[in-house]
Amino acid sequence: MDNSSLKELFAALRNSRPLIHHITNYVTVNDCANITLCIGASPVMADAIEEMEEMTSIAGALVLNIGTLNSRTVESMLLAGRVAREKDIPIILDPVGAGATSYRTKTSQTLIEELCPSVIKGNAGEISVLAGAGGVVKGVDSCDAADDLISVCKSLARETGAVVVATGKNDIATDGITSYSVSNGHELMDKVSGTGCMLSSVTGSFSAVASDLLTASVAAAAAFGIAGERAAADKSYGPYSFRTKLFDKVSSLTPEDLAAEAKVERI
Amino acid sequence: MDNSSLKELFAALRNSRPLIHHITNYVTVNDCANITLCIGASPVMADAIEEMEEMTSIAGALVLNIGTLNSRTVESMLLAGRVAREKDIPIILDPVGAGATSYRTKTSQTLIEELCPSVIKGNAGEISVLAGAGGVVKGVDSCDAADDLISVCKSLARETGAVVVATGKNDIATDGITSYSVSNGHELMDKVSGTGCMLSSVTGSFSAVASDLLTASVAAAAAFGIAGERAAADKSYGPYSFRTKLFDKVSSLTPEDLAAEAKVERI
Amino acid sequence: MDNSSLKELFAALRNSRPLIHHITNYVTVNDCANITLCIGASPVMADAIEEMEEMTSIAGALVLNIGTLNSRTVESMLLAGRVAREKDIPIILDPVGAGATSYRTKTSQTLIEELCPSVIKGNAGEISVLAGAGGVVKGVDSCDAADDLISVCKSLARETGAVVVATGKNDIATDGITSYSVSNGHELMDKVSGTGCMLSSVTGSFSAVASDLLTASVAAAAAFGIAGERAAADKSYGPYSFRTKLFDKVSSLTPEDLAAEAKVERI
Repeated sequence: MDNSSLKELFAALRNSRPLIHHITNYVTVNDCANITLCIGASPVMADAIEEMEEMTSIAGALVLNIGTLNSRTVESMLLAGRVAREKDIPIILDPVGAGATSYRTKTSQTLIEELCPSVIKGNAGEISVLAGAGGVVKGVDSCDAADDLISVCKSLARETGAVVVATGKNDIATDGITSYSVSNGHELMDKVSGTGCMLSSVTGSFSAVASDLLTASVAAAAAFGIAGERAAADKSYGPYSFRTKLFDKVSSLTPEDLAAEAKVERI
Repeated sequence: MDNSSLKELFAALRNSRPLIHHITNYVTVNDCANITLCIGASPVMADAIEEMEEMTSIAGALVLNIGTLNSRTVESMLLAGRVAREKDIPIILDPVGAGATSYRTKTSQTLIEELCPSVIKGNAGEISVLAGAGGVVKGVDSCDAADDLISVCKSLARETGAVVVATGKNDIATDGITSYSVSNGHELMDKVSGTGCMLSSVTGSFSAVASDLLTASVAAAAAFGIAGERAAADKSYGPYSFRTKLFDKVSSLTPEDLAAEAKVERI
Repeated sequence: MDNSSLKELFAALRNSRPLIHHITNYVTVNDCANITLCIGASPVMADAIEEMEEMTSIAGALVLNIGTLNSRTVESMLLAGRVAREKDIPIILDPVGAGATSYRTKTSQTLIEELCPSVIKGNAGEISVLAGAGGVVKGVDSCDAADDLISVCKSLARETGAVVVATGKNDIATDGITSYSVSNGHELMDKVSGTGCMLSSVTGSFSAVASDLLTASVAAAAAFGIAGERAAADKSYGPYSFRTKLFDKVSSLTPEDLAAEAKVERI
């Protein structure tokens, strides 16, 4: 990928400050709000059915995260998603824990079928489960992926029409035809709750200003990963100090930094 | 304003450690709990209809924040508010996102009409919308205010009987007759999610020990702003390090500091 | 207590990384997720009735915390608890605010009667109220305990069959026959929201790998207290910097540290 396209996209994001509507879990919601601010967008978290139509209508992207799903919020996700589809607002689906319970698997499948999300971003296990390629998910942060993860991602992308992102040591992003590997990041990101959810927020932020959602997904993974590398470089104590710095580094990251440090490889 | 009255109020707050009952959003609820502890009060977050009457009855103030409102919690707000009114417990209303969706606007209006809140604290856009003076609210942290904000605040205060606080570069507080401008604060406070919500918690804390809620509102805005200035003065990295220090500085602020550094001007 | 048993238990926890299913409040849920990661376990927060059976079934322990209870989540707690009982998965009950409202007191009693929790961990006031020994609870972090707290804890333990932990300056843990006092900790832990909830998560983490839940409860209180001491030792600013370091220190604590620094006394 030409890293200058990442730079332009990030500059556009910082310039336009899009509103990102989240229907997300109550565990990491504060992290998602703050990381959205830090990357340069404006977060709004709202899940009441009464206001879904209006709130989604004014958003630049919709992030659906099923981390603490329940019947009330799933209903709101479906309504918000339909509004987003009608208005060509990109939908980012984070199927947290798909495979851990059948309720999560089935809800993810329903959201995919009903809403045709623009981006599906999960860990390797969640993506494998949704692609019907096996994979084991225990809880929300532990999984075994299918063996040939790239093929699995491509298969899910072709089946759903979405850009598929599978996070891991290297993040994989594909639209079913073109695929990239992003190797930015740091292992401390796995020691902190919510980094996966935060990446969904960052992906939503880039998606709101992009015409090409594969580029947006790659830019998001690279930008968040670079911030993680920088946060780790001056860590003093441990994962929570790292977390504080992760936010700071997302905030101070420039489009030039992104272009210079993105480790993106076509695969 | 005589700054010694701010000092006395803050000393009274630290001495009596009032219980502040919050019905608030799940995005910034942890920040609100911690900032309430840091300013010297005791937070309780509870929203089940079954315990509203008892919980509000033992509180020194009630903070209602509609950041992630839904039909269940709005019902609890109405019941808690009625109990507070009966028992002369001050009610602080934070109409987050009023103007962004009609559900938020109407709910704010209903809460104002039914509960006669003691203090209405919003950003300039939210206050303008509620005053019927125009204003545009996009999401929860972006807005355009009415042109003559002071008049708008006075008008809303006279119409509702509440002290009205409009936050911004300078915070405005008025009871409809007497008005103050508070110019403490730092621009980094806008880069962190939840500072508006936190100010509502701090306002609730001061209100619980005050006979004059205009003074309480001014003291809260000045105290929180001073803490922001101090946090920014030794910031090392960015908004999240700032956030950590903002809590620390609220915690270490003394009544003497408040009297010495409050930038309050009658307007 | 032989501190080498604490060390072995902590090493087992770090080696096996058990999944800890939480049904908990939305105020401190992020802290609970992160502290669970930091101590070496894997958190999952899920409260939808549709997935309770499956989610609890794959967990090593179940943490029930009524901090922001409502009728929907109490129903989920009851179902999850029944599944845990059937499968011999330890249940940790944190009866937050029992005594502050009758809804909290009655819900705690119902959970105890229906689920026979393995560990009941509360502050001295909550434990006193549940033991029927008086005690006054105001909100969720302020209380007066019964006079003879050790006897009260023993009595509740014998009545319920649970290990009972009463937190305070010294933490008391008892199974009704054998009792320990743990004097690790630091007063700054009381200045931060959620340290009680975090201890429940840590207790759940140790319980998942223990055959003896009294030892697990003592190990948890000692480990968390030691981390608090270490966090306070290099505090720079105040309670929120302390909070950041508390997570870091939990993360860096080793089984050897636990054995060397645990202040546990049989009482």
